[in-house]
Amino acid sequence: MNPGRAIAYAASRRERFLTELCAFVRIPSVSIQPRHARDVRRCAEWLAQHLRAIGLEHVRVVPARRHPIVYARWHHAKSRPTLLIYGHYDVQPVEPEEAWQTPPFQPVVRDGVLYGRGACDDKGQLFTHVKAMESWLRTARALPVNVHCVFEGSEEVGGSPGLEEFVRRNRRTLRADAAVMSDTRMRGPGQPALGYAQRGNVRFELEVRGPRHDLHSGDFGGAVRNPLEALCAILATLYDDEGRIAIPGFYDQVRTWSEDERAFMADAGPSDAEIVRNAGVTHPWGEEGYSLYERTTIRPSLTIHGITGGYQGAGIKTVIPARATAKLSVRTVPDQDAPQVERLLREHIERVTPPEVTAELRRTATSEPVVIERNHPALRAAALAYRRGFGARPVFLRSGGSVPAAAIFRRQLGIPTVLMGFGLPGDKMHAPNEKFELENFYRGIETSIWYLAAMAGQQPVKAHRQASREVRA
Amino acid sequence: MNPGRAIAYAASRRERFLTELCAFVRIPSVSIQPRHARDVRRCAEWLAQHLRAIGLEHVRVVPARRHPIVYARWHHAKSRPTLLIYGHYDVQPVEPEEAWQTPPFQPVVRDGVLYGRGACDDKGQLFTHVKAMESWLRTARALPVNVHCVFEGSEEVGGSPGLEEFVRRNRRTLRADAAVMSDTRMRGPGQPALGYAQRGNVRFELEVRGPRHDLHSGDFGGAVRNPLEALCAILATLYDDEGRIAIPGFYDQVRTWSEDERAFMADAGPSDAEIVRNAGVTHPWGEEGYSLYERTTIRPSLTIHGITGGYQGAGIKTVIPARATAKLSVRTVPDQDAPQVERLLREHIERVTPPEVTAELRRTATSEPVVIERNHPALRAAALAYRRGFGARPVFLRSGGSVPAAAIFRRQLGIPTVLMGFGLPGDKMHAPNEKFELENFYRGIETSIWYLAAMAGQQPVKAHRQASREVRA
Repeated sequence: MNPGRAIAYAASRRERFLTELCAFVRIPSVSIQPRHARDVRRCAEWLAQHLRAIGLEHVRVVPARRHPIVYARWHHAKSRPTLLIYGHYDVQPVEPEEAWQTPPFQPVVRDGVLYGRGACDDKGQLFTHVKAMESWLRTARALPVNVHCVFEGSEEVGGSPGLEEFVRRNRRTLRADAAVMSDTRMRGPGQPALGYAQRGNVRFELEVRGPRHDLHSGDFGGAVRNPLEALCAILATLYDDEGRIAIPGFYDQVRTWSEDERAFMADAGPSDAEIVRNAGVTHPWGEEGYSLYERTTIRPSLTIHGITGGYQGAGIKTVIPARATAKLSVRTVPDQDAPQVERLLREHIERVTPPEVTAELRRTATSEPVVIERNHPALRAAALAYRRGFGARPVFLRSGGSVPAAAIFRRQLGIPTVLMGFGLPGDKMHAPNEKFELENFYRGIETSIWYLAAMAGQQPVKAHRQASREVRA
Repeated sequence: MNPGRAIAYAASRRERFLTELCAFVRIPSVSIQPRHARDVRRCAEWLAQHLRAIGLEHVRVVPARRHPIVYARWHHAKSRPTLLIYGHYDVQPVEPEEAWQTPPFQPVVRDGVLYGRGACDDKGQLFTHVKAMESWLRTARALPVNVHCVFEGSEEVGGSPGLEEFVRRNRRTLRADAAVMSDTRMRGPGQPALGYAQRGNVRFELEVRGPRHDLHSGDFGGAVRNPLEALCAILATLYDDEGRIAIPGFYDQVRTWSEDERAFMADAGPSDAEIVRNAGVTHPWGEEGYSLYERTTIRPSLTIHGITGGYQGAGIKTVIPARATAKLSVRTVPDQDAPQVERLLREHIERVTPPEVTAELRRTATSEPVVIERNHPALRAAALAYRRGFGARPVFLRSGGSVPAAAIFRRQLGIPTVLMGFGLPGDKMHAPNEKFELENFYRGIETSIWYLAAMAGQQPVKAHRQASREVRA
């Protein structure tokens, strides 16, 4: 099928596409904050309605463990391959809200850039595929391939709770040759990138408890161990002075990559200087003997995301708090597994916790690291599509982040996931003033149009009898 | 003057006194939280009106740096001594609010105990003196001594901002022989205590900054130093493994007390077991070679009161925060001085701050340690009053806390401050479910009635020409 008319359709409807994306961004679908639960639901309904309107079939808002999954399909491409298009319609919290220059849920376009929470991660990127499918369906009355859409609402909760169960229960219904998602970054402006690896993420809460209730530091300071100070002491043991994780045995499972692979990475990936610039720091940091790109992709890391303890309001309150909590997570790489990471961390914390307090570690979410062979046909088709959409050959990049879906599709459906990112390193995903370049939005739509065509030329790996089976919650 | 009628008056009006105290507690005069500024003002007006109603003179709500000071006097005792009665009508924040079993500003009496924020610290204790003065004025139409009342509204802000300026500007007006305040604890139920020493308190905020904005830990984890982790690392260096403050030179200024004084303390003060029980901890902690009572009174301590950094809401946000802040304070003892403590802490932090982040230390408030000779006439009068009010000889105790007023009265007026506490060690000052035993409220009133009489027998140290000079803001 020739994508010419679909491309022309998309080119002439950019303004409407942007207006629709703004409506999508305007819904504050913050999945992790209970106060936004109804907004997440509303966002799912909005998306489902949109998918119906462009001509997809079997559109369902399927209840899942945390927030619903929006499912849709189009299955009239007969013997052609089947593509699973994944994305997430939920977004990160906006805190710290005062750091936003424009309100996070009032999308604003300035100088060709869309600002708003979710503009890039992942509403804007998800929407490229939706608009690509619309462009095909309105011009050819058909898609070049069979399609399942799986758009979840719990990705930013951590670990995509409910997605694995949904995919497992619908394994036969969801049979596909490959999955594609756009939830990653390009190499830089005009430089598309195909992701072929992600780190995993194992999340924890660590709570340290001391006195039964908060104490006055005047009365008890000097005689009672402060849980907040003990928490700091424990957390300070997790890294050594050389930027290596100091948990005994932590690196034992970490895979050593070949010199060839490291040379490929050095060639394709960002330089230390670029990463330092994108991070907005003066000094890099971390494990000796690895480039910053390697440190953030093939080496594990451990991050303290937040500490809660004691008095945090204005001024000071001279309290010894009864307890203190930290949120932290480990970015894992092949061949680490989450239970082992948890066990090592737990043993380490038990070893270093002072006797005057108790420490409790809770694992809250897990996603596994993923690697795809770089010469997989679905990746080759994606490379072709990028060359059309962006006029540039994509580089193959590893991602330091973790989209649990890729691990789930590998495990449950046995398929690779193409990581076709349209974001930029400076798009501030998860941070205040998140943005999405409109040029990448429009090129992303064209790339997806081309990708659907390119996938049609692939041999379906399996003969899918795409029944009109109902998806199950 | 015979206090018999005043005592009888107070005994027959307990119910009304309690009702009035509840009205006082009901005003949420949280001085440190800007949202309560009007409540603090309202509380000052309420108190001033009350002082007028009982017959005090020159009642003024005097503007001060943070919150107003309520001033009142009674100066018709001619050649008798002059007593400065100090208290504070502001209260601590209520956080964590969910830990309160009854709403903090809806005072409740249960089993002879008043529950509410400020019930003990310091509204309830301040009110004992107000009701004692009322009892004298209503029965004898006079007080046994001349009185200045100075009730401030910024004590819980830390360092009593504005009090020192007020006292300095009114040095001649406020001339007195001694000050008294009730803002400390008894030794235990039925065991009154006279405070003769307090630790100082030097408060700080420490801010650690790293990347210009929050980063995604997937993208940058392993390549960028996390300010929250660096803050923990810095804070973890402040104590050594033996519970001693590990800042070089920190103990150099700390006074060594005689064996006699330490023997007196061991005799009069609480045992380690008592302190452990009152703290609600399983294990004590701190500096070897000192009892827990000594660790909390004649030895300095350093407490981290709160840490703010990263994401603190529900669930997790996989962020590397751009900055992290800790609130901490040092409890100082003779002969430490605040500038020296600040200098040592600052130098230490500069030494241990990793190069990838910047650390900024701000001193936010200061109060100095205070010691009074135990045989001062004003203390002897207080001991007599206690024996009458509580039927028990008071013990002489050091306090680990810090009421800046005592240091200010010493410095500006050259007078000692009698620390006549009516609280109990378990009254949860500064913590949720603060309480005040009604027995101690009523006995406190009687003790204050006796104290005014006992002070009348003292020779005024100086000849005060108590002019009707107006107090100045």
